[in-house]
Amino acid sequence: MSGRDQRGIRATVWNEYVHETRGDEVVVANYPDGIHAVVADGLREHLGPDADVRTATLREPSHGLTDEVLADTDVLFWWGHIAHEEVSDEVVERVVAHVHAGMGLVVLHSGHYSKVFKRLMGTTCSLKWRNDGERELVWTTAPQHPIAEGIPHPIVIPRQEMYGEFFDIPRPDEEVFLSTFDGGEVFRSGVAYHRGRGKVFYFSPGDQEYPVYHHPDIRRVLANAARWAAATEPRRELTADQHPRDWFLS
Amino acid sequence: MSGRDQRGIRATVWNEYVHETRGDEVVVANYPDGIHAVVADGLREHLGPDADVRTATLREPSHGLTDEVLADTDVLFWWGHIAHEEVSDEVVERVVAHVHAGMGLVVLHSGHYSKVFKRLMGTTCSLKWRNDGERELVWTTAPQHPIAEGIPHPIVIPRQEMYGEFFDIPRPDEEVFLSTFDGGEVFRSGVAYHRGRGKVFYFSPGDQEYPVYHHPDIRRVLANAARWAAATEPRRELTADQHPRDWFLS
Amino acid sequence: MSGRDQRGIRATVWNEYVHETRGDEVVVANYPDGIHAVVADGLREHLGPDADVRTATLREPSHGLTDEVLADTDVLFWWGHIAHEEVSDEVVERVVAHVHAGMGLVVLHSGHYSKVFKRLMGTTCSLKWRNDGERELVWTTAPQHPIAEGIPHPIVIPRQEMYGEFFDIPRPDEEVFLSTFDGGEVFRSGVAYHRGRGKVFYFSPGDQEYPVYHHPDIRRVLANAARWAAATEPRRELTADQHPRDWFLS
Amino acid sequence: MSGRDQRGIRATVWNEYVHETRGDEVVVANYPDGIHAVVADGLREHLGPDADVRTATLREPSHGLTDEVLADTDVLFWWGHIAHEEVSDEVVERVVAHVHAGMGLVVLHSGHYSKVFKRLMGTTCSLKWRNDGERELVWTTAPQHPIAEGIPHPIVIPRQEMYGEFFDIPRPDEEVFLSTFDGGEVFRSGVAYHRGRGKVFYFSPGDQEYPVYHHPDIRRVLANAARWAAATEPRRELTADQHPRDWFLS
Repeated sequence: MSGRDQRGIRATVWNEYVHETRGDEVVVANYPDGIHAVVADGLREHLGPDADVRTATLREPSHGLTDEVLADTDVLFWWGHIAHEEVSDEVVERVVAHVHAGMGLVVLHSGHYSKVFKRLMGTTCSLKWRNDGERELVWTTAPQHPIAEGIPHPIVIPRQEMYGEFFDIPRPDEEVFLSTFDGGEVFRSGVAYHRGRGKVFYFSPGDQEYPVYHHPDIRRVLANAARWAAATEPRRELTADQHPRDWFLS
Repeated sequence: MSGRDQRGIRATVWNEYVHETRGDEVVVANYPDGIHAVVADGLREHLGPDADVRTATLREPSHGLTDEVLADTDVLFWWGHIAHEEVSDEVVERVVAHVHAGMGLVVLHSGHYSKVFKRLMGTTCSLKWRNDGERELVWTTAPQHPIAEGIPHPIVIPRQEMYGEFFDIPRPDEEVFLSTFDGGEVFRSGVAYHRGRGKVFYFSPGDQEYPVYHHPDIRRVLANAARWAAATEPRRELTADQHPRDWFLS
Repeated sequence: MSGRDQRGIRATVWNEYVHETRGDEVVVANYPDGIHAVVADGLREHLGPDADVRTATLREPSHGLTDEVLADTDVLFWWGHIAHEEVSDEVVERVVAHVHAGMGLVVLHSGHYSKVFKRLMGTTCSLKWRNDGERELVWTTAPQHPIAEGIPHPIVIPRQEMYGEFFDIPRPDEEVFLSTFDGGEVFRSGVAYHRGRGKVFYFSPGDQEYPVYHHPDIRRVLANAARWAAATEPRRELTADQHPRDWFLS
Repeated sequence: MSGRDQRGIRATVWNEYVHETRGDEVVVANYPDGIHAVVADGLREHLGPDADVRTATLREPSHGLTDEVLADTDVLFWWGHIAHEEVSDEVVERVVAHVHAGMGLVVLHSGHYSKVFKRLMGTTCSLKWRNDGERELVWTTAPQHPIAEGIPHPIVIPRQEMYGEFFDIPRPDEEVFLSTFDGGEVFRSGVAYHRGRGKVFYFSPGDQEYPVYHHPDIRRVLANAARWAAATEPRRELTADQHPRDWFLS
């Protein structure tokens, strides 16, 4: 039906890769090769042998996100936490332009405060939080959504950082998951948007201090999100065009 | 600006009034004059002396909901639980017609399974539940919504029945509140819709076995909902009309 | 990924089939074997040899829509105009129950006034209209939506009945197409909803007096809608269930 | 009920004020004292003597939009066309911060391409256009929305620039108006959003070359938009806060 059906999904997993390289012990214990490596493995596990899953990190030239890399990416995953400000505005605008032209984007956990996500949302993306190793339950409120396919109701994450409302995001186009925590807080943890010709999914479960990206249900969500968000048509820029009358008949 | 500004809100609080009249002890202890009496008091408390708050119940002729009563009602509150099936289809269609023509409707708690609400939603309105006297927390996800004005974040209800997802409702036009419970469940507890020219708000906190409608924050929500949903223009039927070309110029 | 991927889509095209059988000349000229036959052909053309496209009509026993037929249907198309009232309430409730449990539904043109559609929307579904053979232009406002895939912007329909706003429907979950007409009217002509576990798409282009269902772009929309709405999981009823605490851990 | 009810609405109308000051004849003929003066007059006409309507322009220090001015503004109107790039990023961020903290914003016509609007939307905000003096019809699709109160269906604007789809905006929270043009194009001409604690309304009718802001129906829309968007509570910044468990009980 679409061009992409002829080949597998091309995913790029981006990680600032700072906690791991500076040797934060808990993070290294959970993610010895970096969070991106584990996320990428989860995608490969579910997307099959046709998928082409690559990674990129902050310290690479252009943060590993050149125009060529992005043009070759159907869906980009984004994990950042303590180095948001180190991401250059030029790369941010490049990523945003590719989303507008059709590239999918999946923003993970603390990426809610990344320049890229704030730029696409237009809000502060602020939230309430507490790192207390609480149980998180992830409930599905859109059971027919492709990202919820095959996901248990709820997902049980034994220990996790709490993210709570008010989460300052635009009203989601589709609200797929809601999370609760031992302390009683609630969070819109899986929310979908359209920006230009691209799709954006924010998914909050996942933290450097907990092995959440090893969780089989979370990996399935990430793979579903990759399938849902991945571009199916060639990149196309949206422009302001002048049209004569009846241009559509010519 | 509008006709209604010249006078106070006219609210009618409907209650099936069965638990109380058959003598369910816990219910009578919480609501000796009926749930409707307490809800009506809460509205009077907040809507001021200009408001005209009346009540109606199942056992009255036409369930107390004649065309005259409804024509005189800016916003109707609906509480039912064990007698949904006793509500006549004729009255259901009459209420629905008034909503379509502009009357506001606020559906409370177990009213999710009322004929009126299911008729307006088009879904099964099913949910998960447990009556275990759990603490319910009501969180605001739309802080700028008129129904959230002056409401604490969260509302704390010490003991309450649990209502949990999946709640089979159409995607809300506005999601104002989310609730969590001791057991970890989550529920879309305050959701707003437009149906025809009328506004509909569903609010789940409130149960016959707990004194929730005496809770000051809950009463404030109900009053805010009355203000938001109340009709501001004369009732007007929506019809399928044939129009000549340029009818709008004549 | 899903059960349905192993086989083709099973579509049932329902038509009241009254204009044609009573011999309305213009209609018979456009659709000698019935509107359903032409819609079904359009689906077969695009959905490929694996698809299983059947038809059903009003005069058949149970209007051709037994529980067995519906259980075997991934997506149901609905065309009705002058015989809405002849559709039995029992069949209406059966169709609605299947939608709630996961069956897709595509409602065509004058089907906006069918019992099934009104039952699922909860509104009057009224609109403005004029039959003057005007040019209709169908514009895409959700270019990334699967139903818009490969569709020109705009579709040009040389002659068509006018349907205009105000169209009394719930706020769409997804607004895919907007139509304009020579007289200057506008109409939300392609709107998508979720009801229970099922998807519903309403598409207004198509009228018994004009050969709209022979139009190649319209046929492509119908096939896209079939793919989008078709159930991907086994039918599953939504019920109100009582749950003990921590039921999700057992 | 709210702080603002004690006083009138405080509106600031911002205009780049370049066409007029450089002497574009058609513009000066329509708006001899500037577009902002006519918009401000329209607001005063409808909002009554309690309203406080001021203006600000690009060439003033800080573009007339100091923190003090914005803190004193319930709703800001924005008109810009050829000088978007001259608006300093510092003022853009200041305006955006006030919207996030509660200030209302009404963006007019070519303001779709202003830095402020693009920053709040996160999309390209591109569209199709043609300046051919066509009749624009503005249809209401949300008749119960406060901005549609008292507005004819349709508004008829004899001559206007055409703005057409695809308009690259996020899915609106509320779609209030749709416009059609002589050439057959359609445009989502009145769309409402929430960003942080603030409300944003974009309204496309209005152009420097046509006297649209003198049109009585358009002035009524602008006044309705001012009432709908105006802040009702004190400005409040949204921040990422750490919370201990049960913080809401203390």
